[in-house]
Amino acid sequence: MKVDGKEMRPIWFDRTSETVQVIDQRFLPHELIIKDLTTVDDTIYAIKEMVVRGAPLIGATGALGVYISLVQANNKGADTDYMVSECKRLKDARPTAMNLFWGVDRVMSAALSRDTPGARITAALDEALVIVEEEAVNCRQIGEYGLPIIEEISYRKKGEPVNILTHCNAGWLACIEYGTATAPIYTAFDRDINVHVWVDETRPLNQGSRLTAWELGKHGVNHTVITDNAGGHIMQHGLVDLVIVGTDRTTRSGDVANKIGTYLKALAARDNHIPFYVALPSSTFDWDITDGIADIPIEERDPDEIRYVQGLCNGKVDRVLVPPEDSPAANHAFDVTPARLVTGFITERGVCGATEQDILNLFPDKKN
Amino acid sequence: MKVDGKEMRPIWFDRTSETVQVIDQRFLPHELIIKDLTTVDDTIYAIKEMVVRGAPLIGATGALGVYISLVQANNKGADTDYMVSECKRLKDARPTAMNLFWGVDRVMSAALSRDTPGARITAALDEALVIVEEEAVNCRQIGEYGLPIIEEISYRKKGEPVNILTHCNAGWLACIEYGTATAPIYTAFDRDINVHVWVDETRPLNQGSRLTAWELGKHGVNHTVITDNAGGHIMQHGLVDLVIVGTDRTTRSGDVANKIGTYLKALAARDNHIPFYVALPSSTFDWDITDGIADIPIEERDPDEIRYVQGLCNGKVDRVLVPPEDSPAANHAFDVTPARLVTGFITERGVCGATEQDILNLFPDKKN
Repeated sequence: MKVDGKEMRPIWFDRTSETVQVIDQRFLPHELIIKDLTTVDDTIYAIKEMVVRGAPLIGATGALGVYISLVQANNKGADTDYMVSECKRLKDARPTAMNLFWGVDRVMSAALSRDTPGARITAALDEALVIVEEEAVNCRQIGEYGLPIIEEISYRKKGEPVNILTHCNAGWLACIEYGTATAPIYTAFDRDINVHVWVDETRPLNQGSRLTAWELGKHGVNHTVITDNAGGHIMQHGLVDLVIVGTDRTTRSGDVANKIGTYLKALAARDNHIPFYVALPSSTFDWDITDGIADIPIEERDPDEIRYVQGLCNGKVDRVLVPPEDSPAANHAFDVTPARLVTGFITERGVCGATEQDILNLFPDKKN
Repeated sequence: MKVDGKEMRPIWFDRTSETVQVIDQRFLPHELIIKDLTTVDDTIYAIKEMVVRGAPLIGATGALGVYISLVQANNKGADTDYMVSECKRLKDARPTAMNLFWGVDRVMSAALSRDTPGARITAALDEALVIVEEEAVNCRQIGEYGLPIIEEISYRKKGEPVNILTHCNAGWLACIEYGTATAPIYTAFDRDINVHVWVDETRPLNQGSRLTAWELGKHGVNHTVITDNAGGHIMQHGLVDLVIVGTDRTTRSGDVANKIGTYLKALAARDNHIPFYVALPSSTFDWDITDGIADIPIEERDPDEIRYVQGLCNGKVDRVLVPPEDSPAANHAFDVTPARLVTGFITERGVCGATEQDILNLFPDKKN
């Protein structure tokens, strides 16, 4: 996507330096910093510390991490066990996003199908870059399939702005291109449909106000930042036509793990008869589980992410302590929205309802 | 209540200097600053800029503001019209909290029942201080009437901590003593019931993480700060036994205006079968309206309250800009929780259900 006229992705492989490079998302929107990932430790750090974040991007980073582990193994003259154990470390970097396990396993399989270290390295890089491109294509497809939902509302509102609420950042920064939740929005905007986005700031790390607002602004999409508290009120007053969010893991029965607070917006959407859609590539489905609340592990992160807020202070990025120094804080990173609150899923294969049967009708290859 | 061993209230009349004094709550928890209110402009500024906040405290400040306006009028040799117009300015300082209009009107009536400027000043001060003391007594009563709700849960949990979630600050800083939502909590704590409070940080102004956490910590009550996003998740996982919040205005039919985000917590409590109580003195009821969503005016405040977050940075109170400089923000300060989501009201006269009939059974003098 375009940033000040220049095409950018949140991750890429630089052929000249043979290095994986990423945007360090921790400093956006105030500083645009590029970071090299040259070791598995770099990669794990980038995933854990949210240099990169968002389920599809975590998957792509993990996939390229397998390539990085093979280069390291080759330099050390290490054996296959080394790569396997490095890949396990990669998968342990964060517990909730499905795409991480999926991406790492897929590239590891591709590498293990070859016999020599050199062939494995090449196979891993090729497969990781295929994943990167596939996710870009998937997001474009999500945009196409989601577009009619927005078009229909625009038609009904006779061209008045379609007000879409989104939570966290499921934009191109979280993916490769277009985003998941934002793909239908960008697609509609690019086809001159009048859209306006309510951007939940998304505490604690403010991925909405820092990242989604930045992305939408750079693309020229009308948007307004609101607190996470505000969604219910604006829904009650007819100011939201549609909610679209992304997901970090969705069960085969349609339970949706996403950034903490998503469940509250789904409840408010239901209470106000507003459609609530979840946009995701198939790599985010966990085909092995059905009870999201019981079975999706929810990451607990450092309470300092709540206690401190980062932003621009006197021209530089700094942070402020909000609560009393000695007050404890708890930082659950995700919650699970039960399928009963989800209107439908927007995937690269089309739109479906939030039941196991509807999902499997789109993905018949996943039937048991 | 005690702050580092010293008894404090958020507002008081200093007899020596004949001045109304308040805690400047904007700088808590990092700085405890006392501010004099010597003019009506000071008083309006304090209410508007949230030097003081919380419905009962806004009411008390407005009440003392009438006294201040009479002293000013006397110094200027102004007539009754001057006081009446100054009182109108006081009532216009903030639109949502019922107590402001109630407090100003009550003191104005008391003053107008006298004929001389001196007698009016004395009557206004006396009446305002009666309001202050009444609100302290009301809060103590709210604590007594709310206590059995917590006791019953504690008994059922065999002494395990009773986990209570609260939103914003409806503590003694918002009132005079004890608070409204916190009164049953302090009362239970003081009687050795094992309680733990989940403190919603309450964006944008973080009255939860700044003020409620500070109050509870100073009193020794176990608490954990969470983001406003987290309540639904912890309710799903059995970590909340009870929700208690305050209110800025409640209709005679039981619709509850309170800090933005309260409605989302009420939805989550309902979805998880958790009791949701609202604690309030009768001065917060608006006896004239029944449809809270249509009829309670919701204040829209400066978007910079969302864009900037204040806290301690390198040893001093400063603020950071979070979203992109050019992203718009919208700042609705309150929302309305429909009566159907409220389990009951805890008032100075007892506990009642959230229907007009139940409320009027406690307040039969308000029947039409």
